[in-house]
Amino acid sequence: MNLIPELIGYLAATLTTASFLPQAIKTFKTRDTESLSLGMYSMFTLGVLLWLIYGIYLVNVAIIVANAITFLLAAAILGFKIHNLLRK
Amino acid sequence: MNLIPELIGYLAATLTTASFLPQAIKTFKTRDTESLSLGMYSMFTLGVLLWLIYGIYLVNVAIIVANAITFLLAAAILGFKIHNLLRK
Repeated sequence: MNLIPELIGYLAATLTTASFLPQAIKTFKTRDTESLSLGMYSMFTLGVLLWLIYGIYLVNVAIIVANAITFLLAAAILGFKIHNLLRK
Repeated sequence: MNLIPELIGYLAATLTTASFLPQAIKTFKTRDTESLSLGMYSMFTLGVLLWLIYGIYLVNVAIIVANAITFLLAAAILGFKIHNLLRK
C-alpha cells in the first residue's frame, strides 16, 4: 500500500475543512460580511449538509465529523450574512 | 444498488464545488475582499490543490475536474485578497 496518496488526501481534507475556521473567527470578530457572497454560503452550507447526510448513509465517521464541523462553521457565517442583509 | 446515496453525494459535490463561482463573480465585480479571510483562502486553495494532486494519483476524473475548477476560482479570489492587502 502506497501511503503517499493517502497522506495527501488526509492533508487535503484537513486543510479544506479547517479553512472555514479562520473565516468564522474573522466574521465573529468583525461582524463584517459585506464582501462575502450570499449565493456561495447558501450553496456551500446546503452542500455540506448533503455531504453530512451522505456520510451518515455510508456510516463513514471521517465524512460525518469533517462535514458536521464545516456545516456548523458555514451555517454560522451564513447566519451573520443574512442577519446583516436583513438589518439594512 | 441504492441510487439515493449516490445522488446525494453527487448533489453535495456539485453544490460545494459550484458555490465558489458566485463568490468569485462577486469578488471580480466589486474588487472588495475586506471581509474575506486571508487564512481561509490560503488554506483552502492549498487544500484544493492537494485534492487535485490526490485525484491525479487516483486517476479519478471527477476529483480532478471538480478540484481543478475550484482551484482556479479559489486562487483567483486569493489573488484579489493579496493584491488588496499589498495596496494598503
